[in-house]
Amino acid sequence: MTLGIVGGGQLGRMLGLAAARLGIDCVFLDPSNNACAGVVGDLLTGAFDDTGALNALAERCDVLTYEFENVDVSELTRLAAKTPLYPGVDAVRVSQSRRAEKTFFAGLGLAVAPWGYAAEPRELDAALAKSGLPAIVKTDRLGYDGKGQRRVRSRDEAHAAFADMGSVAVCVEGLVDFDEEVSVIGARSRDGQLVSYPLTRNRHDNGILVESVAIDSEHPLAGAALHALQATTSALDYVGTLAIEFFVCGDTLLVNEFAPRVHNSGHWTMDGALTSQFENHVRAVAGLPLGSTRALGASGMHNFLGVLPAAPAVLANPAVRLHDYGKAPRPGRKVGHANVICESAQERDKCLNFLAKLSTHTAKDAL
Amino acid sequence: MTLGIVGGGQLGRMLGLAAARLGIDCVFLDPSNNACAGVVGDLLTGAFDDTGALNALAERCDVLTYEFENVDVSELTRLAAKTPLYPGVDAVRVSQSRRAEKTFFAGLGLAVAPWGYAAEPRELDAALAKSGLPAIVKTDRLGYDGKGQRRVRSRDEAHAAFADMGSVAVCVEGLVDFDEEVSVIGARSRDGQLVSYPLTRNRHDNGILVESVAIDSEHPLAGAALHALQATTSALDYVGTLAIEFFVCGDTLLVNEFAPRVHNSGHWTMDGALTSQFENHVRAVAGLPLGSTRALGASGMHNFLGVLPAAPAVLANPAVRLHDYGKAPRPGRKVGHANVICESAQERDKCLNFLAKLSTHTAKDAL
Repeated sequence: MTLGIVGGGQLGRMLGLAAARLGIDCVFLDPSNNACAGVVGDLLTGAFDDTGALNALAERCDVLTYEFENVDVSELTRLAAKTPLYPGVDAVRVSQSRRAEKTFFAGLGLAVAPWGYAAEPRELDAALAKSGLPAIVKTDRLGYDGKGQRRVRSRDEAHAAFADMGSVAVCVEGLVDFDEEVSVIGARSRDGQLVSYPLTRNRHDNGILVESVAIDSEHPLAGAALHALQATTSALDYVGTLAIEFFVCGDTLLVNEFAPRVHNSGHWTMDGALTSQFENHVRAVAGLPLGSTRALGASGMHNFLGVLPAAPAVLANPAVRLHDYGKAPRPGRKVGHANVICESAQERDKCLNFLAKLSTHTAKDAL
Repeated sequence: MTLGIVGGGQLGRMLGLAAARLGIDCVFLDPSNNACAGVVGDLLTGAFDDTGALNALAERCDVLTYEFENVDVSELTRLAAKTPLYPGVDAVRVSQSRRAEKTFFAGLGLAVAPWGYAAEPRELDAALAKSGLPAIVKTDRLGYDGKGQRRVRSRDEAHAAFADMGSVAVCVEGLVDFDEEVSVIGARSRDGQLVSYPLTRNRHDNGILVESVAIDSEHPLAGAALHALQATTSALDYVGTLAIEFFVCGDTLLVNEFAPRVHNSGHWTMDGALTSQFENHVRAVAGLPLGSTRALGASGMHNFLGVLPAAPAVLANPAVRLHDYGKAPRPGRKVGHANVICESAQERDKCLNFLAKLSTHTAKDAL
């Protein structure tokens, strides 16, 4: 079987590594002829809206998926009519617009932070009235890793941000005074079987994920997160791995956003769960049964941003598994991560501290 | 870093997958232009004694290793003078000859089954006098997976076997009435650090490994196995992953043979140990610190020989991880394996039974 993957970044690379173990070949489409997934499959070069390139990908593959959801929906719809595409186009459509996403979640009865929508300046005040202040102004479309968003404390700041962001449509979201951020990751098979991983607690820096910790399945909000996962995947008749990010406010879970793909906060599953989010995504889209998501220890992940510390330094701790994406260093760029798998939460936290320090020192040295 | 691997079979493929996670690129040399490791790195086509091809491999790589030890020693020696090669040529030399291997182990004070050596017919009786009868006649060189060996009950059968095997030099080994076969797998770093995995109990069929089970580190002979591993790797100043196979006879461990490479009986470590034998081999030869070999559950492996059962059937059990080498079916050929990782030994054995049945049925259907 040949699996076509739209996008050839690190998520594609890790999907390709998981597919190879299962004897599934991968072909990637990416605008860069140097995309890091190229080491684990053939790489076609082309823009994500390049009809010819997308056709070339589809023609070589038995099934298609994507590692990046900001792909032209009409192109995907056209492809899906010829070659099976999972997750389906509905998931992409909803995830591409914050307004669509929040409306979708509200329709499922899932709580979100107060928000408003403004397509033009004269709509901004009404939107702020709904969200309250302070708020975060986010472009309705094409935002990721903290890009396309700005925190504002006043009407004036909101209007300035709106103008700065090119006066494209925005959502304004009331700033949530959350206790922590968590995500749930699950995978759903073609025949509707759903599996989910233990909840993950995430720490962000400037909107970019820095650290994830797999938390106990006894977490009081695990049930609510699972309910959100079930409702979301059922409503979309979803196939593949999906992540939902939440704010925890006391005993309430507010949905932040979802990603119709494998997700950075699930990278720990590569080493810390019986079957990784990548393998379960591949299994799901390939029509195979899903694997156990059981955690194999106390696990966590640290993201390396900008530049990777030297491998010998990272691996000096024997409980650490390093994942180097083979990407050139660049400020803020996700160039790799390290997973830790320990026998206790205390030991795991010690390992994560070790990685955080290493990461900070490396970043300082690189300046 | 670019790692050159002599051999592009499934061991090379799994080494390549482990290397890719660490951001290490691989180049393989194999006589087949269709070798299954080709999906995870560049594949050079050439015989293992093709000087030009070996040079081409060395020129592209920072460090060299091999997945197959029956490579011309003088060629390897020449290469190693230019490009670092691990494990070193001594290990290859010893492993290529059963006589050299048994002499080596005896020199370390490690017990082996009674044996004799015969380079020509007139030496065979003296060899049989040493080994006793019944015995196994094995070619001194180039044997693997039960190839090049024959069980004999009498002098006449031994002489017939010797003639049938082309009158090449042989070792005759007294048939050992063993209780079980076990192996120990370890990895040694460039600076002499040694790590070892829990002992593995192996079941063979016609000399080919069928099933491995990781056994408790409390096994009474674990200490003796570790001693053999330490003595062997020290004597060879070994770098990389190494396997030693033993016969267990009561409370005695007899060394059968060793392999200076990753080994089929260590495939369970891909999913059942914190760091796999493949990753630790890559780390060792690349000069990186070794990872923890801690077992993550009750693990075992089943080999698929000849033909792979359909993936949905294998994966119907969620505790199973399938490894499909992407090789065409052929009787007796190792085409894939499945690992199981369970919470108890009982559950693991149930999963291994499930795989054994599936394997047998598939083999029958394929007839």
